Amino acid sequence: MDKIIFALPGNETIANTIADKLHFPVGEMVLRSFPDAETYVRVLSNVDGKNAILVSTLYQPNSKLLPLYFLAKLLKDLGAKVTLIAPYLSYMRQDKRFHDGEAVSSEYFAALLSSFADELITIDPHLHRRNSMSEIYTIPCKVLHAAPLISSWIKENIEMPLLVGPDSESEQWVAETAAKMNTPYIVLNKERISDTEVKISVPDVVQFKNHTPVLVDDIISTAKTMIVTAKHLSEAGLKPVTCIGVHGLFAGNAYEDLLKAGVGRIITCNTILHLSNEIDVSDLIINSLD
Amino acid sequence: MDKIIFALPGNETIANTIADKLHFPVGEMVLRSFPDAETYVRVLSNVDGKNAILVSTLYQPNSKLLPLYFLAKLLKDLGAKVTLIAPYLSYMRQDKRFHDGEAVSSEYFAALLSSFADELITIDPHLHRRNSMSEIYTIPCKVLHAAPLISSWIKENIEMPLLVGPDSESEQWVAETAAKMNTPYIVLNKERISDTEVKISVPDVVQFKNHTPVLVDDIISTAKTMIVTAKHLSEAGLKPVTCIGVHGLFAGNAYEDLLKAGVGRIITCNTILHLSNEIDVSDLIINSLD
Repeated sequence: MDKIIFALPGNETIANTIADKLHFPVGEMVLRSFPDAETYVRVLSNVDGKNAILVSTLYQPNSKLLPLYFLAKLLKDLGAKVTLIAPYLSYMRQDKRFHDGEAVSSEYFAALLSSFADELITIDPHLHRRNSMSEIYTIPCKVLHAAPLISSWIKENIEMPLLVGPDSESEQWVAETAAKMNTPYIVLNKERISDTEVKISVPDVVQFKNHTPVLVDDIISTAKTMIVTAKHLSEAGLKPVTCIGVHGLFAGNAYEDLLKAGVGRIITCNTILHLSNEIDVSDLIINSLD
Repeated sequence: MDKIIFALPGNETIANTIADKLHFPVGEMVLRSFPDAETYVRVLSNVDGKNAILVSTLYQPNSKLLPLYFLAKLLKDLGAKVTLIAPYLSYMRQDKRFHDGEAVSSEYFAALLSSFADELITIDPHLHRRNSMSEIYTIPCKVLHAAPLISSWIKENIEMPLLVGPDSESEQWVAETAAKMNTPYIVLNKERISDTEVKISVPDVVQFKNHTPVLVDDIISTAKTMIVTAKHLSEAGLKPVTCIGVHGLFAGNAYEDLLKAGVGRIITCNTILHLSNEIDVSDLIINSLD
Protein backbone atom coordinates (compact mmCIF):
# COMPACT_ATOMS: atom_id res chain seq x y z
CA MET A 1 0.00 0.00 0.00
CA ASP A 2 1.48 3.37 -1.03
CA LYS A 3 2.20 5.64 1.91
CA ILE A 4 1.74 9.40 2.17
CA ILE A 5 2.64 11.41 5.25
CA PHE A 6 0.82 14.35 6.85
CA ALA A 7 2.19 16.51 9.68
CA LEU A 8 -0.21 18.18 12.08
CA PRO A 9 1.08 21.67 13.06
CA GLY A 10 4.33 21.41 15.05
CA ASN A 11 5.18 17.91 13.79
CA GLU A 12 6.81 18.93 10.51
CA THR A 13 10.42 18.09 11.47
CA ILE A 14 9.82 14.44 12.36
CA ALA A 15 7.36 14.00 9.48
CA ASN A 16 9.83 15.44 6.95
CA THR A 17 12.68 13.29 8.30
CA ILE A 18 10.57 10.15 7.91
CA ALA A 19 9.42 11.22 4.44
CA ASP A 20 13.00 11.96 3.33
CA LYS A 21 14.53 8.73 4.61
CA LEU A 22 11.73 6.44 3.39
CA HIS A 23 10.98 8.42 0.20
CA PHE A 24 7.31 8.86 1.14
CA PRO A 25 5.54 11.85 -0.40
CA VAL A 26 4.42 14.57 2.00
CA GLY A 27 0.67 15.13 1.69
CA GLU A 28 -0.51 18.59 0.73
CA MET A 29 -3.26 20.04 2.87
CA VAL A 30 -4.77 23.25 4.21
CA LEU A 31 -5.47 23.34 7.94
CA ARG A 32 -6.56 26.73 9.23
CA SER A 33 -9.00 28.49 11.53
CA PHE A 34 -12.08 30.37 10.44
CA PRO A 35 -12.46 33.81 12.07
CA ASP A 36 -14.78 32.21 14.67
CA ALA A 37 -12.03 29.71 15.66
CA GLU A 38 -13.60 26.71 13.96
CA THR A 39 -11.16 24.53 12.02
CA TYR A 40 -11.09 24.22 8.23
CA VAL A 41 -9.38 21.19 6.65
CA ARG A 42 -8.77 20.42 2.99
CA VAL A 43 -6.57 17.67 1.55
CA LEU A 44 -5.11 18.49 -1.87
CA SER A 45 -3.18 15.26 -2.52
CA ASN A 46 -4.74 12.13 -3.96
CA VAL A 47 -4.97 9.68 -1.05
CA ASP A 48 -7.46 7.16 -2.45
CA GLY A 49 -6.31 3.60 -1.72
CA LYS A 50 -3.22 4.86 0.13
CA ASN A 51 -1.99 4.57 3.71
CA ALA A 52 -2.08 8.10 5.13
CA ILE A 53 0.36 8.49 8.00
CA LEU A 54 -0.54 11.35 10.35
CA VAL A 55 2.16 12.59 12.69
CA SER A 56 0.62 14.32 15.71
CA THR A 57 2.20 14.33 19.13
CA LEU A 58 -0.57 14.66 21.70
CA TYR A 59 0.83 16.86 24.47
CA GLN A 60 -1.84 19.39 25.55
CA PRO A 61 -4.35 17.34 23.62
CA ASN A 62 -7.64 19.18 24.20
CA SER A 63 -7.28 21.75 21.45
CA LYS A 64 -5.48 19.29 19.11
CA LEU A 65 -8.15 16.61 19.11
CA LEU A 66 -10.81 18.09 16.79
CA PRO A 67 -8.42 19.15 13.99
CA LEU A 68 -6.86 15.66 14.12
CA TYR A 69 -10.31 14.04 14.15
CA PHE A 70 -11.48 16.09 11.14
CA LEU A 71 -8.33 15.31 9.16
CA ALA A 72 -8.54 11.57 9.91
CA LYS A 73 -12.27 11.40 9.06
CA LEU A 74 -11.62 13.30 5.84
CA LEU A 75 -8.75 11.03 4.78
CA LYS A 76 -10.95 7.99 5.38
CA ASP A 77 -13.77 9.60 3.36
CA LEU A 78 -11.24 10.14 0.57
CA GLY A 79 -10.37 6.42 0.57
CA ALA A 80 -7.23 6.27 2.72
CA LYS A 81 -6.24 3.97 5.57
CA VAL A 82 -5.17 6.13 8.53
CA THR A 83 -2.10 5.40 10.65
CA LEU A 84 -1.67 7.79 13.55
CA ILE A 85 1.87 8.33 14.83
CA ALA A 86 1.61 9.98 18.25
CA PRO A 87 5.20 10.14 19.55
CA TYR A 88 3.70 11.24 22.89
CA LEU A 89 0.32 9.74 23.72
CA SER A 90 -1.82 11.67 26.21
CA TYR A 91 -4.48 10.59 28.68
CA MET A 92 -2.65 7.43 29.78
CA ARG A 93 -2.36 8.36 33.44
CA GLN A 94 -5.96 8.27 34.70
CA ASP A 95 -6.22 4.53 34.00
CA LYS A 96 -8.33 3.60 37.01
CA ARG A 97 -11.25 4.93 39.07
CA PHE A 98 -9.27 5.89 42.20
CA HIS A 99 -12.37 7.49 43.77
CA ASP A 100 -16.09 6.94 43.12
CA GLY A 101 -17.40 8.89 40.15
CA GLU A 102 -14.08 9.55 38.44
CA ALA A 103 -13.78 9.48 34.66
CA VAL A 104 -11.34 6.83 33.47
CA SER A 105 -10.09 9.16 30.80
CA SER A 106 -7.52 6.72 29.39
CA GLU A 107 -10.37 4.41 28.31
CA TYR A 108 -12.56 7.20 26.93
CA PHE A 109 -9.66 8.74 25.03
CA ALA A 110 -8.67 5.34 23.63
CA ALA A 111 -12.24 4.74 22.44
CA LEU A 112 -12.24 8.10 20.67
CA LEU A 113 -8.88 7.59 18.93
CA SER A 114 -9.89 4.03 18.02
CA SER A 115 -13.02 5.44 16.32
CA PHE A 116 -11.13 7.48 13.74
CA ALA A 117 -7.63 6.00 13.31
CA ASP A 118 -7.03 2.55 11.82
CA GLU A 119 -3.80 1.98 13.70
CA LEU A 120 -1.58 3.75 16.20
CA ILE A 121 2.19 3.98 16.64
CA THR A 122 3.51 5.54 19.83
CA ILE A 123 6.64 5.69 21.98
CA ASP A 124 6.75 4.54 25.61
CA PRO A 125 3.11 5.19 26.51
CA HIS A 126 2.59 5.43 30.26
CA LEU A 127 1.27 1.87 30.78
CA HIS A 128 1.20 1.99 34.53
CA ARG A 129 -1.47 -0.40 35.72
CA ARG A 130 -2.05 -1.88 32.24
CA ASN A 131 -0.06 -4.67 30.64
CA SER A 132 -0.69 -3.72 27.03
CA MET A 133 -2.35 -1.15 24.84
CA SER A 134 -4.88 -3.75 23.66
CA GLU A 135 -6.54 -3.56 27.08
CA ILE A 136 -7.81 -0.09 26.20
CA TYR A 137 -7.29 0.43 22.43
CA THR A 138 -9.40 -1.56 19.97
CA ILE A 139 -7.16 -0.71 16.98
CA PRO A 140 -3.72 -2.30 16.39
CA CYS A 141 -1.02 -0.41 18.32
CA LYS A 142 2.74 -0.53 17.86
CA VAL A 143 4.60 0.47 21.00
CA LEU A 144 8.18 1.66 20.46
CA HIS A 145 10.79 1.99 23.19
CA ALA A 146 13.31 4.79 23.53
CA ALA A 147 15.48 2.88 26.04
CA PRO A 148 18.15 1.76 23.51
CA LEU A 149 18.48 5.35 22.24
CA ILE A 150 18.80 6.62 25.82
CA SER A 151 21.42 3.99 26.69
CA SER A 152 23.43 4.98 23.62
CA TRP A 153 23.21 8.64 24.56
CA ILE A 154 24.43 7.93 28.11
CA LYS A 155 27.34 5.79 26.85
CA GLU A 156 28.44 8.49 24.45
CA ASN A 157 28.01 11.43 26.79
CA ILE A 158 28.55 10.40 30.43
CA GLU A 159 31.89 9.03 31.60
CA MET A 160 30.98 7.20 34.84
CA PRO A 161 27.21 7.03 34.99
CA LEU A 162 25.20 5.89 37.99
CA LEU A 163 21.69 5.04 36.81
CA VAL A 164 19.01 6.24 39.20
CA GLY A 165 15.49 4.82 39.06
CA PRO A 166 13.00 7.34 40.44
CA ASP A 167 10.75 4.72 42.05
CA SER A 168 10.14 1.00 42.50
CA GLU A 169 8.14 0.92 39.23
CA SER A 170 11.30 1.76 37.31
CA GLU A 171 13.45 -0.90 39.04
CA GLN A 172 13.11 -3.58 36.37
CA TRP A 173 13.97 -1.23 33.52
CA VAL A 174 16.87 0.41 35.38
CA ALA A 175 18.32 -2.94 36.48
CA GLU A 176 18.19 -4.38 32.96
CA THR A 177 19.64 -1.26 31.38
CA ALA A 178 22.43 -1.02 33.96
CA ALA A 179 23.35 -4.67 33.40
CA LYS A 180 23.53 -4.18 29.61
CA MET A 181 25.60 -1.00 30.02
CA ASN A 182 27.74 -2.53 32.75
CA THR A 183 27.06 0.43 35.09
CA PRO A 184 25.88 0.57 38.69
CA TYR A 185 22.35 1.67 39.61
CA ILE A 186 20.24 2.66 42.60
CA VAL A 187 16.45 2.85 42.97
CA LEU A 188 14.72 5.47 45.10
CA ASN A 189 11.56 5.14 47.11
CA LYS A 190 8.86 7.59 46.01
CA GLU A 191 5.55 8.31 47.69
CA ARG A 192 3.00 10.47 45.82
CA ILE A 193 1.12 12.80 48.16
CA SER A 194 -0.84 14.83 45.51
CA ASP A 195 -0.65 15.93 41.83
CA THR A 196 2.30 18.15 42.63
CA GLU A 197 3.82 16.75 45.84
CA VAL A 198 6.05 13.70 46.32
CA LYS A 199 8.23 12.30 49.12
CA ILE A 200 11.56 10.67 48.23
CA SER A 201 14.07 8.54 50.14
CA VAL A 202 17.60 7.79 48.85
CA PRO A 203 19.67 4.69 49.71
CA ASP A 204 23.31 4.91 50.79
CA VAL A 205 25.34 6.36 47.90
CA VAL A 206 28.72 7.06 49.50
CA GLN A 207 30.58 4.69 47.12
CA PHE A 208 29.34 6.60 44.01
CA LYS A 209 30.94 9.99 44.77
CA ASN A 210 32.88 9.98 41.50
CA HIS A 211 29.95 8.90 39.34
CA THR A 212 27.48 11.17 37.52
CA PRO A 213 23.98 10.24 38.61
CA VAL A 214 21.63 9.84 35.64
CA LEU A 215 17.96 10.04 36.46
CA VAL A 216 15.72 8.56 33.75
CA ASP A 217 11.92 8.73 33.72
CA ASP A 218 9.32 8.26 30.99
CA ILE A 219 7.62 11.63 31.56
CA ILE A 220 8.98 14.89 32.98
CA SER A 221 5.82 16.82 33.86
CA THR A 222 5.96 19.13 36.91
CA ALA A 223 9.49 17.71 37.56
CA LYS A 224 8.79 17.89 41.32
CA THR A 225 10.10 14.34 41.74
CA MET A 226 13.28 15.07 39.81
CA ILE A 227 13.87 18.31 41.72
CA VAL A 228 13.48 16.65 45.12
CA THR A 229 15.60 13.72 43.99
CA ALA A 230 18.34 15.98 42.63
CA LYS A 231 18.45 17.76 45.99
CA HIS A 232 18.68 14.49 47.93
CA LEU A 233 21.44 13.16 45.66
CA SER A 234 23.34 16.45 45.97
CA GLU A 235 22.97 16.43 49.78
CA ALA A 236 24.24 12.85 49.75
CA GLY A 237 27.44 14.22 48.19
CA LEU A 238 26.96 13.14 44.56
CA LYS A 239 27.82 15.19 41.44
CA PRO A 240 25.05 17.21 39.74
CA VAL A 241 22.45 14.87 38.27
CA THR A 242 21.74 14.47 34.55
CA CYS A 243 17.97 14.26 34.03
CA ILE A 244 16.66 12.31 31.04
CA GLY A 245 13.02 12.08 30.06
CA VAL A 246 11.50 10.26 27.12
CA HIS A 247 8.70 12.85 27.06
CA GLY A 248 9.49 16.36 28.28
CA LEU A 249 6.12 17.94 29.10
CA PHE A 250 7.65 20.54 31.44
CA ALA A 251 4.29 21.64 32.91
CA GLY A 252 4.28 25.25 34.10
CA ASN A 253 7.84 26.37 34.98
CA ALA A 254 9.19 22.83 35.36
CA TYR A 255 12.19 23.40 33.09
CA GLU A 256 13.27 26.61 34.83
CA ASP A 257 12.65 24.99 38.24
CA LEU A 258 14.91 22.07 37.31
CA LEU A 259 17.68 24.42 36.21
CA LYS A 260 17.34 26.42 39.45
CA ALA A 261 17.55 23.19 41.46
CA GLY A 262 21.12 22.82 40.20
CA VAL A 263 20.80 19.74 38.03
CA GLY A 264 23.64 19.13 35.58
CA ARG A 265 21.91 18.54 32.27
CA ILE A 266 18.32 18.07 31.14
CA ILE A 267 17.92 15.83 28.12
CA THR A 268 14.78 14.63 26.34
CA CYS A 269 13.73 12.74 23.25
CA ASN A 270 12.08 14.83 20.52
CA THR A 271 8.62 13.29 21.05
CA ILE A 272 7.56 16.79 22.18
CA LEU A 273 9.38 19.77 20.66
CA HIS A 274 11.59 21.39 23.34
CA LEU A 275 15.05 22.94 23.60
CA SER A 276 16.13 19.95 25.74
CA ASN A 277 15.62 17.56 22.79
CA GLU A 278 18.90 15.74 22.18
CA ILE A 279 17.74 12.22 21.40
CA ASP A 280 16.11 11.83 17.99
CA VAL A 281 13.34 9.23 17.76
CA SER A 282 12.89 9.46 13.97
CA ASP A 283 14.86 6.28 13.27
CA LEU A 284 12.84 4.41 15.86
CA ILE A 285 9.67 5.37 14.00
CA ILE A 286 11.22 4.73 10.59
CA ASN A 287 12.20 1.20 11.61
CA SER A 288 8.63 0.50 12.70
CA LEU A 289 7.18 1.38 9.28
CA ASP A 290 7.53 -1.54 6.93
CA MET B 1 -37.18 10.07 34.66
CA ASP B 2 -35.60 12.27 37.36
CA LYS B 3 -33.54 15.09 35.94
CA ILE B 4 -30.24 16.51 37.21
CA ILE B 5 -28.45 19.42 35.58
CA PHE B 6 -24.71 19.97 35.01
CA ALA B 7 -23.11 23.19 33.79
CA LEU B 8 -19.87 23.08 31.85
CA PRO B 9 -17.64 26.05 32.79
CA GLY B 10 -19.21 29.34 31.70
CA ASN B 11 -22.75 27.94 31.50
CA GLU B 12 -23.65 28.27 35.19
CA THR B 13 -26.13 31.15 34.82
CA ILE B 14 -28.47 29.47 32.34
CA ALA B 15 -28.09 26.10 34.11
CA ASN B 16 -28.94 27.58 37.50
CA THR B 17 -31.95 29.47 36.07
CA ILE B 18 -33.31 26.25 34.57
CA ALA B 19 -32.63 24.34 37.79
CA ASP B 20 -34.34 27.01 39.92
CA LYS B 21 -37.45 27.34 37.78
CA LEU B 22 -37.95 23.60 37.21
CA HIS B 23 -36.72 22.51 40.67
CA PHE B 24 -34.06 20.22 39.18
CA PRO B 25 -31.06 19.48 41.38
CA VAL B 26 -27.72 20.83 40.19
CA GLY B 27 -25.22 17.99 39.83
CA GLU B 28 -22.04 18.18 41.87
CA MET B 29 -18.83 17.54 39.97
CA VAL B 30 -15.13 18.35 39.83
CA LEU B 31 -13.78 19.44 36.44
CA ARG B 32 -10.20 20.64 36.52
CA SER B 33 -6.88 20.46 34.70
CA PHE B 34 -3.89 18.38 35.72
CA PRO B 35 -0.57 20.29 35.67
CA ASP B 36 0.09 18.87 32.17
CA ALA B 37 -3.23 20.37 30.89
CA GLU B 38 -5.11 17.07 30.72
CA THR B 39 -8.67 17.21 32.06
CA TYR B 40 -9.84 15.51 35.26
CA VAL B 41 -13.57 14.85 35.73
CA ARG B 42 -15.40 13.42 38.72
CA VAL B 43 -19.15 13.33 39.32
CA LEU B 44 -20.12 13.38 43.00
CA SER B 45 -23.92 13.21 42.65
CA ASN B 46 -25.84 9.98 42.19
CA VAL B 47 -26.97 9.96 38.55
CA ASP B 48 -27.87 6.29 38.12
CA GLY B 49 -31.16 5.96 36.23
CA LYS B 50 -31.47 9.73 35.87
CA ASN B 51 -31.57 12.10 32.92
CA ALA B 52 -28.41 14.19 33.17
CA ILE B 53 -28.79 17.52 31.39
CA LEU B 54 -25.48 19.07 30.36
CA VAL B 55 -25.49 22.75 29.47
CA SER B 56 -22.55 23.59 27.22
CA THR B 57 -22.64 26.29 24.61
CA LEU B 58 -20.19 25.36 21.87
CA TYR B 59 -18.61 28.61 20.71
CA GLN B 60 -14.83 28.08 20.22
CA PRO B 61 -15.48 24.36 20.44
CA ASN B 62 -12.03 22.83 19.94
CA SER B 63 -10.85 23.08 23.54
CA LYS B 64 -14.36 22.40 24.94
CA LEU B 65 -14.96 19.13 23.17
CA LEU B 66 -12.83 16.70 25.21
CA PRO B 67 -14.01 17.83 28.67
CA LEU B 68 -17.61 17.58 27.43
CA TYR B 69 -16.94 14.16 25.90
CA PHE B 70 -15.35 12.86 29.12
CA LEU B 71 -18.21 14.15 31.26
CA ALA B 72 -20.88 12.67 28.95
CA LYS B 73 -19.10 9.29 28.75
CA LEU B 74 -18.71 9.25 32.52
CA LEU B 75 -22.39 10.06 33.15
CA LYS B 76 -23.41 7.24 30.80
CA ASP B 77 -20.99 4.89 32.59
CA LEU B 78 -22.66 5.91 35.85
CA GLY B 79 -26.08 4.96 34.49
CA ALA B 80 -27.49 8.29 33.27
CA LYS B 81 -29.20 9.28 30.04
CA VAL B 82 -27.40 12.34 28.63
CA THR B 83 -29.21 15.36 27.18
CA LEU B 84 -26.89 17.99 25.76
CA ILE B 85 -28.18 21.55 25.71
CA ALA B 86 -25.93 23.53 23.37
CA PRO B 87 -27.54 27.00 23.16
CA TYR B 88 -25.04 27.72 20.35
CA LEU B 89 -24.10 24.75 18.19
CA SER B 90 -20.79 24.99 16.35
CA TYR B 91 -19.55 23.47 13.09
CA MET B 92 -22.82 24.00 11.21
CA ARG B 93 -21.39 26.19 8.48
CA GLN B 94 -19.12 23.84 6.50
CA ASP B 95 -22.08 21.69 5.46
CA LYS B 96 -20.93 20.91 1.92
CA ARG B 97 -17.74 20.09 0.02
CA PHE B 98 -17.37 23.40 -1.84
CA HIS B 99 -13.99 22.34 -3.25
CA ASP B 100 -12.45 18.89 -3.79
CA GLY B 101 -10.88 17.44 -0.68
CA GLU B 102 -12.64 19.62 1.90
CA ALA B 103 -13.74 18.20 5.22
CA VAL B 104 -17.50 18.45 5.69
CA SER B 105 -17.00 19.32 9.33
CA SER B 106 -20.71 19.67 10.12
CA GLU B 107 -21.17 15.94 9.40
CA TYR B 108 -18.05 14.85 11.29
CA PHE B 109 -18.92 17.01 14.28
CA ALA B 110 -22.50 15.69 14.28
CA ALA B 111 -21.21 12.11 14.22
CA LEU B 112 -18.98 12.83 17.21
CA LEU B 113 -21.70 14.50 19.30
CA SER B 114 -24.15 11.74 18.33
CA SER B 115 -21.67 9.18 19.68
CA PHE B 116 -21.74 10.46 23.25
CA ALA B 117 -24.99 12.39 23.81
CA ASP B 118 -28.40 10.70 23.78
CA GLU B 119 -30.25 13.81 22.66
CA LEU B 120 -29.53 17.41 21.74
CA ILE B 121 -31.38 20.66 22.35
CA THR B 122 -30.15 23.77 20.53
CA ILE B 123 -31.31 27.22 19.46
CA ASP B 124 -31.42 28.34 15.82
CA PRO B 125 -28.63 26.14 14.46
CA HIS B 126 -27.26 27.44 11.15
CA LEU B 127 -29.21 25.06 8.89
CA HIS B 128 -28.18 26.67 5.64
CA ARG B 129 -28.28 24.02 2.97
CA ARG B 130 -29.93 21.42 5.23
CA ASN B 131 -33.63 21.08 5.90
CA SER B 132 -33.38 19.45 9.30
CA MET B 133 -30.92 18.33 11.94
CA SER B 134 -31.80 14.69 11.26
CA GLU B 135 -29.91 14.93 7.96
CA ILE B 136 -26.66 15.08 9.92
CA TYR B 137 -27.44 14.10 13.54
CA THR B 138 -28.39 10.51 14.35
CA ILE B 139 -29.68 11.38 17.85
CA PRO B 140 -33.03 13.13 18.49
CA CYS B 141 -32.61 16.92 18.26
CA LYS B 142 -34.95 19.63 19.49
CA VAL B 143 -34.49 22.90 17.61
CA LEU B 144 -35.72 25.99 19.43
CA HIS B 145 -36.30 29.37 17.80
CA ALA B 146 -35.42 32.73 19.28
CA ALA B 147 -37.58 34.67 16.77
CA PRO B 148 -40.57 35.20 19.11
CA LEU B 149 -38.23 36.52 21.84
CA ILE B 150 -36.56 38.85 19.34
CA SER B 151 -39.93 40.12 18.05
CA SER B 152 -41.02 40.85 21.62
CA TRP B 153 -37.79 42.69 22.32
CA ILE B 154 -38.20 44.84 19.20
CA LYS B 155 -41.84 45.65 20.06
CA GLU B 156 -40.90 46.71 23.57
CA ASN B 157 -37.78 48.67 22.69
CA ILE B 158 -38.05 50.18 19.18
CA GLU B 159 -40.74 52.71 18.36
CA MET B 160 -40.92 52.57 14.54
CA PRO B 161 -38.88 49.58 13.45
CA LEU B 162 -37.92 48.76 9.88
CA LEU B 163 -36.88 45.11 9.73
CA VAL B 164 -33.83 44.55 7.53
CA GLY B 165 -32.97 41.08 6.22
CA PRO B 166 -29.23 40.82 5.51
CA ASP B 167 -29.64 38.57 2.46
CA SER B 168 -32.12 36.63 0.36
CA GLU B 169 -31.82 33.63 2.73
CA SER B 170 -33.40 35.69 5.48
CA GLU B 171 -36.31 36.94 3.34
CA GLN B 172 -38.87 34.33 4.43
CA TRP B 173 -38.17 34.86 8.13
CA VAL B 174 -38.10 38.66 7.86
CA ALA B 175 -41.28 38.77 5.81
CA GLU B 176 -43.18 36.53 8.25
CA THR B 177 -41.92 38.40 11.29
CA ALA B 178 -42.70 41.80 9.78
CA ALA B 179 -46.23 40.65 8.92
CA LYS B 180 -46.85 39.42 12.50
CA MET B 181 -45.44 42.61 13.97
CA ASN B 182 -47.22 44.79 11.43
CA THR B 183 -43.98 46.58 10.50
CA PRO B 184 -42.34 47.26 7.14
CA TYR B 185 -39.24 45.34 5.98
CA ILE B 186 -36.55 45.38 3.32
CA VAL B 187 -34.15 42.64 2.20
CA LEU B 188 -30.60 43.34 1.05
CA ASN B 189 -28.59 41.58 -1.59
CA LYS B 190 -25.36 40.06 -0.19
CA GLU B 191 -22.51 38.50 -2.11
CA ARG B 192 -19.81 36.64 -0.14
CA ILE B 193 -16.33 37.20 -1.61
CA SER B 194 -14.26 35.42 1.11
CA ASP B 195 -14.38 34.48 4.84
CA THR B 196 -14.11 38.14 5.77
CA GLU B 197 -15.35 40.09 2.72
CA VAL B 198 -18.90 40.69 1.51
CA LYS B 199 -20.57 42.98 -1.05
CA ILE B 200 -23.96 44.48 -0.18
CA SER B 201 -26.61 46.32 -2.16
CA VAL B 202 -29.51 48.22 -0.56
CA PRO B 203 -32.93 48.84 -2.15
CA ASP B 204 -34.57 52.28 -2.15
CA VAL B 205 -35.28 53.27 1.46
CA VAL B 206 -36.26 56.93 1.14
CA GLN B 207 -39.74 56.36 2.62
CA PHE B 208 -38.27 54.91 5.88
CA LYS B 209 -36.34 57.99 7.03
CA ASN B 210 -38.24 58.13 10.35
CA HIS B 211 -37.92 54.42 11.09
CA THR B 212 -35.18 52.71 13.08
CA PRO B 213 -33.63 50.01 10.91
CA VAL B 214 -33.32 46.68 12.79
CA LEU B 215 -30.90 44.22 11.31
CA VAL B 216 -31.44 40.66 12.52
CA ASP B 217 -29.14 37.72 11.76
CA ASP B 218 -28.67 34.30 13.34
CA ILE B 219 -24.91 34.70 13.87
CA ILE B 220 -22.79 37.81 14.35
CA SER B 221 -19.25 36.55 13.66
CA THR B 222 -16.79 38.98 12.04
CA ALA B 223 -19.77 41.41 11.67
CA LYS B 224 -18.34 42.54 8.31
CA THR B 225 -21.78 42.20 6.72
CA MET B 226 -23.47 44.20 9.48
CA ILE B 227 -20.81 46.91 9.32
CA VAL B 228 -21.09 47.32 5.55
CA THR B 229 -24.88 47.21 5.78
CA ALA B 230 -24.96 49.78 8.57
CA LYS B 231 -22.84 52.12 6.42
CA HIS B 232 -25.09 51.67 3.39
CA LEU B 233 -28.23 52.29 5.44
CA SER B 234 -26.66 55.35 7.01
CA GLU B 235 -25.55 56.68 3.59
CA ALA B 236 -29.11 56.08 2.37
CA GLY B 237 -30.22 58.54 5.06
CA LEU B 238 -31.65 56.15 7.65
CA LYS B 239 -31.26 56.40 11.44
CA PRO B 240 -28.49 54.39 13.17
CA VAL B 241 -29.20 50.68 12.84
CA THR B 242 -30.00 48.36 15.76
CA CYS B 243 -28.14 45.08 15.24
CA ILE B 244 -29.65 41.91 16.72
CA GLY B 245 -27.99 38.51 16.63
CA VAL B 246 -29.25 35.25 18.07
CA HIS B 247 -25.64 34.16 18.58
CA GLY B 248 -23.02 36.86 19.21
CA LEU B 249 -19.66 35.25 18.37
CA PHE B 250 -17.93 38.60 17.79
CA ALA B 251 -14.81 37.06 16.22
CA GLY B 252 -11.68 39.16 16.72
CA ASN B 253 -12.61 42.83 17.27
CA ALA B 254 -16.06 42.51 15.73
CA TYR B 255 -17.87 44.16 18.65
CA GLU B 256 -15.54 47.17 18.74
CA ASP B 257 -15.65 47.42 14.94
CA LEU B 258 -19.46 47.51 15.03
CA LEU B 259 -19.44 50.25 17.66
CA LYS B 260 -16.92 52.26 15.61
CA ALA B 261 -19.10 51.86 12.51
CA GLY B 262 -21.73 53.99 14.25
CA VAL B 263 -24.49 51.44 14.76
CA GLY B 264 -27.15 52.36 17.30
CA ARG B 265 -27.42 49.32 19.52
CA ILE B 266 -26.00 45.78 19.48
CA ILE B 267 -28.27 43.20 21.06
CA THR B 268 -27.84 39.43 21.38
CA CYS B 269 -29.47 36.45 23.03
CA ASN B 270 -27.52 34.91 25.92
CA THR B 271 -26.65 31.72 24.00
CA ILE B 272 -23.02 32.91 24.26
CA LEU B 273 -22.06 35.02 27.29
CA HIS B 274 -21.40 38.62 26.16
CA LEU B 275 -22.08 42.14 27.39
CA SER B 276 -24.55 42.60 24.51
CA ASN B 277 -26.84 39.87 25.94
CA GLU B 278 -30.29 41.41 26.45
CA ILE B 279 -32.59 38.61 25.35
CA ASP B 280 -32.77 35.69 27.77
CA VAL B 281 -33.30 32.25 26.22
CA SER B 282 -33.75 30.39 29.53
CA ASP B 283 -37.55 30.24 29.24
CA LEU B 284 -37.27 28.92 25.70
CA ILE B 285 -35.13 26.05 26.99
CA ILE B 286 -37.33 25.53 30.07
CA ASN B 287 -40.44 25.18 27.89
CA SER B 288 -38.69 22.52 25.82
CA LEU B 289 -37.97 20.31 28.83
CA ASP B 290 -41.03 18.29 29.72
